[in-house]
Amino acid sequence: MQNQTIKGFRASFLDVIADPFYETEADCVRYFPDGLLVVEHGKVKDLGDYETLYPQYADIPITYYRDRLIVSGFIDTHIHFPQMEMIASYGEQLLEWLSTYTFPTERKFADRNYALEISSLFLNELLRNGTTTALVFTSVFLQSTDAFFEEAQRRNLRMIAGKVMMDRHAPDFLVDTAASSYLETKQLIEKWHKRDRLLYAVTPRFAITSTSEQLTNAGKLLAEFPDVYLHTHLSENVKEVETVAEFFPESEGYLDVYDRAGLVGSKSVFAHGVQLTDREFARLSEAKSAIAFCPTSNLFLGSGLFKLEKAKSSETPVKVGLGTDVGAGTSFSILRTASAAYQVAQLRSQKLSAFKALFLATLGGAIALSLDDKLGNFEIGKEADFIVLNLRSTPIMALRNKSSDQAIATTLAEISDQLFATIIMGDDRAIETTYIMGEKAEF
Amino acid sequence: MQNQTIKGFRASFLDVIADPFYETEADCVRYFPDGLLVVEHGKVKDLGDYETLYPQYADIPITYYRDRLIVSGFIDTHIHFPQMEMIASYGEQLLEWLSTYTFPTERKFADRNYALEISSLFLNELLRNGTTTALVFTSVFLQSTDAFFEEAQRRNLRMIAGKVMMDRHAPDFLVDTAASSYLETKQLIEKWHKRDRLLYAVTPRFAITSTSEQLTNAGKLLAEFPDVYLHTHLSENVKEVETVAEFFPESEGYLDVYDRAGLVGSKSVFAHGVQLTDREFARLSEAKSAIAFCPTSNLFLGSGLFKLEKAKSSETPVKVGLGTDVGAGTSFSILRTASAAYQVAQLRSQKLSAFKALFLATLGGAIALSLDDKLGNFEIGKEADFIVLNLRSTPIMALRNKSSDQAIATTLAEISDQLFATIIMGDDRAIETTYIMGEKAEF
Repeated sequence: MQNQTIKGFRASFLDVIADPFYETEADCVRYFPDGLLVVEHGKVKDLGDYETLYPQYADIPITYYRDRLIVSGFIDTHIHFPQMEMIASYGEQLLEWLSTYTFPTERKFADRNYALEISSLFLNELLRNGTTTALVFTSVFLQSTDAFFEEAQRRNLRMIAGKVMMDRHAPDFLVDTAASSYLETKQLIEKWHKRDRLLYAVTPRFAITSTSEQLTNAGKLLAEFPDVYLHTHLSENVKEVETVAEFFPESEGYLDVYDRAGLVGSKSVFAHGVQLTDREFARLSEAKSAIAFCPTSNLFLGSGLFKLEKAKSSETPVKVGLGTDVGAGTSFSILRTASAAYQVAQLRSQKLSAFKALFLATLGGAIALSLDDKLGNFEIGKEADFIVLNLRSTPIMALRNKSSDQAIATTLAEISDQLFATIIMGDDRAIETTYIMGEKAEF
Repeated sequence: MQNQTIKGFRASFLDVIADPFYETEADCVRYFPDGLLVVEHGKVKDLGDYETLYPQYADIPITYYRDRLIVSGFIDTHIHFPQMEMIASYGEQLLEWLSTYTFPTERKFADRNYALEISSLFLNELLRNGTTTALVFTSVFLQSTDAFFEEAQRRNLRMIAGKVMMDRHAPDFLVDTAASSYLETKQLIEKWHKRDRLLYAVTPRFAITSTSEQLTNAGKLLAEFPDVYLHTHLSENVKEVETVAEFFPESEGYLDVYDRAGLVGSKSVFAHGVQLTDREFARLSEAKSAIAFCPTSNLFLGSGLFKLEKAKSSETPVKVGLGTDVGAGTSFSILRTASAAYQVAQLRSQKLSAFKALFLATLGGAIALSLDDKLGNFEIGKEADFIVLNLRSTPIMALRNKSSDQAIATTLAEISDQLFATIIMGDDRAIETTYIMGEKAEF
């Protein structure tokens, strides 16, 4: 029985199996202080207490991560790969930031080789930060989308991406047309969607840089390929919302612009939503669309404080995942993103617990991306993308997360406390190893 | 001439010599892409362009930090050493956070040996993060203050600290009396103030935990020892401000409580000031008092957004330094603190440039602590506390701060851009080495 298709991992395990925004937290998580995860053919075969489970798997090779916590791989529901190199650009809010920094940088991605080079650095950085799945903006250039998918395919990653559609209000070197974007997107869907672990997202940049005709074409693509995603920006910044209202006087608000083009559905993911109205939250809830909450970006660009408690209300529940939104976001780390989410909640007199944050980073992200049948926790049959966390990866974290008796937290309260401190203070150093389909990722 | 009392350091150098909030930025900084710093007897003897200056110092030993930027040591104007181990405690705003986490933790500091142990870890962590001077809350226990000063003295650090005075509204195990706090503080001042590089700060915790009698005694100490500091908290949180108004109905606002006790002067440093009124800003300006701006703490506790532009106005200018406020602050890093300050500014539609942030972290902090005759830049005669920065200390920073032609930024615009990215993304890893009085710090 000892072969490479089945193997075990011994460590502490924590996963989220239901939504702690709606159910008792203790019922939403599973914690095994000394657990065993069994992986077969890259998928979860079993998870349980080590002592209990071990006898059934006495012959398989087991990797032991002593004093380490294994959780599901993090899911980033909104990020731009061509903006990696311009992260932390100074001094502007959204619209000026786009024209000053973003558009000139994205121009470089007309060069396929450059796009390949940055794709590789970008995926390394995601994996180093424990992110195993992301929903990714490429650039307007089809060859940059191709490059990204090739690199993700080579690494056997579950990634969702799409070519940016933008046919106005951007420099000439960065626009396509309603017709060309339709054709190129169609070609890319046929080439990449469901190829290995890859999935496609129809990706109009945002309402300001697309004509109605282009948005209509995006809707046409969704109708033709009903299982692809829609990925765009929505209601990030006050001035942006005002501009959209000017550009689309016939629409009843920003979301309605997308709705009229048939872009608001259960596989639609809208980044930001900081300025959403109650009516728009209700519409997103009804349509089963998702929001990518990007707190480091919202703080860095001064966009505002996302109303998470509104999105996670009982009345109009909306699917929410975390997004780093690099390059407006300031870190690839979902830990640092969750830390910023906690700050946003505090400034709104709300509380974001460690388990709620972990939900957003894992199962919540999977639900937002309609991938909860495949990812987000260690339920049997799911894909074994997971990360090994060191909760004491810096001197201050070692002091803070020192357990009284044992190295590993034994109670749910204790692991919640240590996970919280890791969210607030942790970064890429807390991610010791990243596994993709049960294999150690190289980067 | 070659001996250990005089030595040189070759690297890029950047320092701030005037306040960029009031003068043209380019006139406020000095940048030497290839510079030479000469240190004699622990103080700055010279700084200039390497090629120009080198011939005068041909015989001295020179340490070359290639591709590194040397700046003055960071100054933390507000931090609590006994709260180190409870950093990142979950879910509360100020007053509940104090009673739930802080008070039980500070109790441990009645034990002198424990206080010594944490003092050492605490100073290690400051130095690892490039902070060479700090204004420090100890605990109510005199022995914890002694322990802190002993450890700081052993390392030859310029530190300001004081025993906490608190005689009410705290657990019995954590209160002194108006009389005992007066006597113990006096004893500590006589023992430690101006001993080697150490300085004393009279430290009532805040108006809520001190009786009028204790505040009056604090004022009496300041009158008896006119060159010691006053260090306390002010107007951090809305509920706190309301409580102070209840407790001191005769006072015209929070600051006035301190003013009536004679605590508002040119060596007074008030942490936070998030909720200050215009009249209070004017009074602080008039009194030449300083504010410690603690953005990671203000975001973590949800206290609010400090009005930096008000403090740095021309009408009522107030001295401002950065404070980490560990343990309510979430990092020992002044880089991360400056990054949070940028977010606060953005949320208020203000801009905090890299040079302004560097000012707050160095010369601004020195001015706030009335130490600008000794610290804050490389002016001749100042104490040579400085840090060696690696602007490319992580893969993403290496990509972001890649210069087009050369490893070292050659222009002011380029170093400003790279410093900004280092502020936004950097942490302890960016601090390669810390020097105290020209000697490499061990930690």
